Amino acid sequence: MTALKNDRFLRALLRQPVDVTPVWMMRQAGRYLPEYRATRAKAGDFLSLCKNAELACEVTLQPLERFELDAAILFSDILTVPDAMGLGLYFEEGEGPRFRKPVRTEKDVADLPVPNAATDLDYVMNAVRTIRGALNGRVPLIGFSGSPWTLATYMVEGGSSKDFRTIKRMLYAQPDVLHALLDKLALSVIDYLNQQILAGAQAVQIFDTWGGVLSTGSYQDFSLRYMEKIVKGLIREHDGRKVPVILFTKNGAQWLELIANTGCDCAGLDWTNEIAAARARVGDRIALQGNMDPSVLYASASDIRAEVGRILAGFGKGNGHVFNLGHGIALDADPDKAKVFVDAVHELSAQYHI
Amino acid sequence: MTALKNDRFLRALLRQPVDVTPVWMMRQAGRYLPEYRATRAKAGDFLSLCKNAELACEVTLQPLERFELDAAILFSDILTVPDAMGLGLYFEEGEGPRFRKPVRTEKDVADLPVPNAATDLDYVMNAVRTIRGALNGRVPLIGFSGSPWTLATYMVEGGSSKDFRTIKRMLYAQPDVLHALLDKLALSVIDYLNQQILAGAQAVQIFDTWGGVLSTGSYQDFSLRYMEKIVKGLIREHDGRKVPVILFTKNGAQWLELIANTGCDCAGLDWTNEIAAARARVGDRIALQGNMDPSVLYASASDIRAEVGRILAGFGKGNGHVFNLGHGIALDADPDKAKVFVDAVHELSAQYHI
Repeated sequence: MTALKNDRFLRALLRQPVDVTPVWMMRQAGRYLPEYRATRAKAGDFLSLCKNAELACEVTLQPLERFELDAAILFSDILTVPDAMGLGLYFEEGEGPRFRKPVRTEKDVADLPVPNAATDLDYVMNAVRTIRGALNGRVPLIGFSGSPWTLATYMVEGGSSKDFRTIKRMLYAQPDVLHALLDKLALSVIDYLNQQILAGAQAVQIFDTWGGVLSTGSYQDFSLRYMEKIVKGLIREHDGRKVPVILFTKNGAQWLELIANTGCDCAGLDWTNEIAAARARVGDRIALQGNMDPSVLYASASDIRAEVGRILAGFGKGNGHVFNLGHGIALDADPDKAKVFVDAVHELSAQYHI
Repeated sequence: MTALKNDRFLRALLRQPVDVTPVWMMRQAGRYLPEYRATRAKAGDFLSLCKNAELACEVTLQPLERFELDAAILFSDILTVPDAMGLGLYFEEGEGPRFRKPVRTEKDVADLPVPNAATDLDYVMNAVRTIRGALNGRVPLIGFSGSPWTLATYMVEGGSSKDFRTIKRMLYAQPDVLHALLDKLALSVIDYLNQQILAGAQAVQIFDTWGGVLSTGSYQDFSLRYMEKIVKGLIREHDGRKVPVILFTKNGAQWLELIANTGCDCAGLDWTNEIAAARARVGDRIALQGNMDPSVLYASASDIRAEVGRILAGFGKGNGHVFNLGHGIALDADPDKAKVFVDAVHELSAQYHI
C-alpha cells in the first residue's frame, strides 16, 4: 500500500508525539455540505448512497477538499449489520431508521444469523477499498461500527426511541434473551470490523450512542462487556502498523475509567465531559478524542477559536489528544465555520507539542 | 394547619433521623394507573385536568391510596409558567407539548411578561390549597417548577427537541438574548414557587430535565446559575417548618459538587449516577434523592427488591436519603410492581436507621 503522508491521527491515538493536534469531525461527510447533498441526490436515497462504492467514496473525500482534516471516515450507516441479519432497514423521511422485522422474542434472537461480513456486507468492504485507493495515502481511513448495545436498541425498539422502554423491559424481564442477542452482535461486529481492517481501515471506532441511558451496573453488563469482547477480538496490527481502536459512549462521562480498562487505545468524549478532568482521571493510559459541542459552530469565528483554545489548554501538553466534536456536526452548520474550527485546532495546538 | 402525621420525607431532606427511608415516585400520579386514566377521561385533555383543582386533587391522591408513599406531589405541568407568559401551550397527541408562539428573537424576549403567579397561575395555587386540605396532614405536599433552562428549551424550540439546535444556536450566537430570557424565567419561577409555598407546598423540586445536554461551562452559566438564583429567592421557612428545596438535573451526574454548592437541600439523581459514589462525593453536605431506573419495574418482584436493597446499601447508614425512581414512572408500568418497590424501600431500609 502507499505510504501514509499524514499519520498524525494514528500517532496521537497511540500517544506518540505529533507536530500539531490532529482533528476530524464526526459526520464530516454529510448534509451540511452542498456537494454532499448533490451526490446524495444522484444516488437517490441514503442507503443507495451507502451501497454505491464510487459515490460513498466521493462523499467521504468531499470534506477533505474543503478542510485540512487529519482523517477520513468510511461513509456508511451504523445499522448495516442488523440489515445484513435480515431485519429490513429502511429510512422514513424525518423519522430516522426503522426495521421491518424488530427483534422481540427468544425465537427472534435464536433465528438471527451472524452475517458473513466479507460476503453479506461486501458493499462496505468495496467502499473501504475504493476510498483507500482514492485517498492514496493522504490521511488514514477510519472504519466503524455501532456497539452491540446500540445496535440492539434499534433492533428491539424497531427504530429510534426516546425512552427505550421495549429494550429495557427485555433487559430487566428477560436478561438472558438480551445477552444472547448481544453475543451474536458482538461476534458479528468483530467480523465486520476485522473485514474493514483487512480491506484497508487503519483505525476503527465503535459508536455506543445509547450506552448512556443505562445505570452503571447495566452499562457494564450490557454494553461495555460486549465492547471489551470486540476490542479483544480485533486485528490490532495490519500492514505493518498498529490499528488503534476508539470507544465512544455518548453520555458516558462518568465511566471513563471503566472504558480505559477495556484495552481500547482511545476514548471518545462528548462535550459534557470536561477534558482536563477526563485526562486527570485516565492519565496517559489511553488517548482522548473530542470534545467541542457541535453547537459552538453557531458562534462567531473568534468565539469558536476561543473554545478550541480552551479545550486544547484543558488537555494540556503531551501526547494522546485527537480533536473532534463531541457528536456529529449539525446538518445546518455553516461549512465556513467548520473550516475556522479545523484551522484553529492546528494553529493553536502547536504550542502544546514543542 | 393540621399537624403532619408522616414527616419522614421532610426530615430526610434536612438530613434528620428517620425510622425508615422515605419514598415517592416521580410521575406517581399518572397514566400507568387506571384510576388516573378514568379521571383524565372525565376532565377531557391533560391541560383541563391541570386546571381543575378538584380533579387535580383527585389524581394527586390516587397513588397514596394504593401505595405507602411518603409524599404527594402537586399534579401539574412544568410548562405552566411559559403558558402564563402567553406562549399558547398545547399538547399534540403523541407529540408532547407545543407552543403556538415560540420565543426566537430579542424582541420576543423583551415582550415577554413576568407573570403574577398569584393571579395568572391561580389555578395552580387553588390546586395546592385543595390538595393540602384533602391530604389533611397525611404526608407532605411537594410543589415544583421546571428550571429556567429547561423551560427555555421548550419556549425557544417551540416544543420537545432531540438535538436542541435552535436554543443552542441562540446560546452560542446570541448569549445575551438567552440570558435575558433566563433572567425573566428565574424571576417568574421564584414568584411561582413562593406562591406555591404560601398556598401550602411543604417542599419544592426544580426539574432541570435538559441541563444534561450542556457542556460543563454552559451548564454553569445557563442552567445552574439561574437555579441558584431561585434557591436564594425562595421562602425557606413557612408555617413553622423549613421548606426544603430539591434540584434535579437529569444527566447531571458529573456536576453533583456544583449542585451541592447552590444552597439547595437535596440533589435528585437519575439512575446513571451510582449513589455510593455520589454520597462519597458530597458527603453529608446535602441529601440525595433517587435513583432506581424506572425500567427496573419491568423486572420480577424479587429482582426489584434486590435492586432496592443494592441502592439502599449504596447510600448506606445515616441520614439524608429520599428514595425515588431516577425519572418518571413509565406509562406501561404495572401498579403492582410499583407497590413491590415502595414496600421494599420501607422494609429493607429499617436496618440503616438504627
